[in-house]
Amino acid sequence: MGGDFGPRITVPAALMALERNADIEITLFGSEDEIRKVLPQTAAKPPERLSIIHCDESIAMDEKPSSALKRGKQTSLFRAVESLTQSTRLCKAVVSAGNTGAFMAIGKHLLGMFHHIDRPAICARLPSANERTWVLDLGANIDSTPEMLYQYAQMGTVLVRTLENLDRPEVALLNVGSEQGKGHDTVRLAAEKMKASAQLNYVGFVEGNDVFTGNVDIVVCDGFVGNTLIKASQGLARLISGMLLTDLDKTQREYMPVIAGFVEAFCAQIDPCRYNGASLLGLNSTAVVSHGSANANAFAHAIELAACESKLELPLKLSSHFNQ
Amino acid sequence: MGGDFGPRITVPAALMALERNADIEITLFGSEDEIRKVLPQTAAKPPERLSIIHCDESIAMDEKPSSALKRGKQTSLFRAVESLTQSTRLCKAVVSAGNTGAFMAIGKHLLGMFHHIDRPAICARLPSANERTWVLDLGANIDSTPEMLYQYAQMGTVLVRTLENLDRPEVALLNVGSEQGKGHDTVRLAAEKMKASAQLNYVGFVEGNDVFTGNVDIVVCDGFVGNTLIKASQGLARLISGMLLTDLDKTQREYMPVIAGFVEAFCAQIDPCRYNGASLLGLNSTAVVSHGSANANAFAHAIELAACESKLELPLKLSSHFNQ
Repeated sequence: MGGDFGPRITVPAALMALERNADIEITLFGSEDEIRKVLPQTAAKPPERLSIIHCDESIAMDEKPSSALKRGKQTSLFRAVESLTQSTRLCKAVVSAGNTGAFMAIGKHLLGMFHHIDRPAICARLPSANERTWVLDLGANIDSTPEMLYQYAQMGTVLVRTLENLDRPEVALLNVGSEQGKGHDTVRLAAEKMKASAQLNYVGFVEGNDVFTGNVDIVVCDGFVGNTLIKASQGLARLISGMLLTDLDKTQREYMPVIAGFVEAFCAQIDPCRYNGASLLGLNSTAVVSHGSANANAFAHAIELAACESKLELPLKLSSHFNQ
Repeated sequence: MGGDFGPRITVPAALMALERNADIEITLFGSEDEIRKVLPQTAAKPPERLSIIHCDESIAMDEKPSSALKRGKQTSLFRAVESLTQSTRLCKAVVSAGNTGAFMAIGKHLLGMFHHIDRPAICARLPSANERTWVLDLGANIDSTPEMLYQYAQMGTVLVRTLENLDRPEVALLNVGSEQGKGHDTVRLAAEKMKASAQLNYVGFVEGNDVFTGNVDIVVCDGFVGNTLIKASQGLARLISGMLLTDLDKTQREYMPVIAGFVEAFCAQIDPCRYNGASLLGLNSTAVVSHGSANANAFAHAIELAACESKLELPLKLSSHFNQ
């Protein structure tokens, strides 16, 4: 029910993900009426491997996490997360384009967190020259302590090791300069901790531009900074796409029909939606956050990320890492 | 002498700025030998309106501000800033692509700051749909208090009023969400102060993407966040330019000669160098920071920004605003 468009996007996305992945099953939590309205008219019953669990209520995008947790038991988000718990074991991963704060609060409440982890973190892969840089935290925590930054580095390492099959992924810490001694106490203390850890392949400080050069596998930062970074990048990518088409139309009108297809493909490539789907790390199960404005294809990507994390048993690997 | 290329860039940039602006004079501070090496061979003496003041030393890019201040009296940067002081009044504005921390420390020491201003801030205009959004602080202060954010808003307002001739520029505060109550104490307290100020046209919180939509005139943020934002944007712009040319070459090779010119022009347009030149606000005089990797054209832009601020008497306007 979440995101800017609710079932109009999430239902077609689910069908798309089912079609592309023969080995997954999807359960939709939400208003059965609304869901059925967007299911293909011809289908008398839901397609195979798709089930619907009707929920009367849903959590508003701007609802406070505390209120969501208190009144939320009958909401689609609460029940979707609940389907992952030990008592039900109905599902193995949950995806939502809804209220991220509420998602985190319900996730912590119902699924619990790994030992030695203070707060969950949001992690996603950004486009880069070699498409390999994962960044966390992207907005779960806006006052990260050195210890929390250190925990992000650990979680990011396990994630990249699992999803990218890299043995010792390189971790860097985002700072205002790459020289030692740069930055405030928080990053300097976090750097000390990371340097001292045998589990991490810590390579030092990087700056904002390094997120897009693909020089390191993981960039760790506070959620306020990460959130600004990802949103600014989305804003700039959109600005550039728009400028590209306008400029092209002005100066190369005769070639526009020929290269319009190219430009369209290119814009899709830099579209943040292509990288939709961010992992909510730290919870005892797989949870993936989708961008609220994602289209069906982008939401399907988020579903596929969740399926992939679940198949590769990322939660188990994280849990054994932190429970050592 | 500063930046990645020293006089090889700054000298041609100075000649470019002189040619484009009949009403400015430029004094170069640095190694006379090195400067003369890059002056046009045919010129027996420096071009008109250009003078050279030889300095034996210069400040290294990675030198600590405290050391620069202590040992720096004979350096090009120190003497350039000194040329603006009451005792000399040789120059009216200073531009450097050198060590920003040293530039700030020497600036504070020699020029002094406005009353009621705790720390200088770095302010620049970013590309946006209508090219109007100025952002500060871009990295001068990485632990801004609510009071400092409030001061940035004041300084940004005077700058935009002066340079863009806008009576009541709209100021927004960067946050992780636009709803009231979002963010940490620092931004919430700063928002309260801005809301209560009759001098500010405060419009509320904005998110990272709003920096590039041009919806507000001024975006205020802490320097750690602003520094990451601007560097990440530069990284993404370069990534996109590179991808654009590679993709074009792969898929549209036959049209490449036709549209290569267009792509080149487009890439130049999104090049951060085009927006080179950031104002160091808070000092009792005009000081402009250039990107270390700026080319001659970009450094000339920084010189022109300094000339413009000086002609429009921005320091005087700032000083009378804060001394009210």
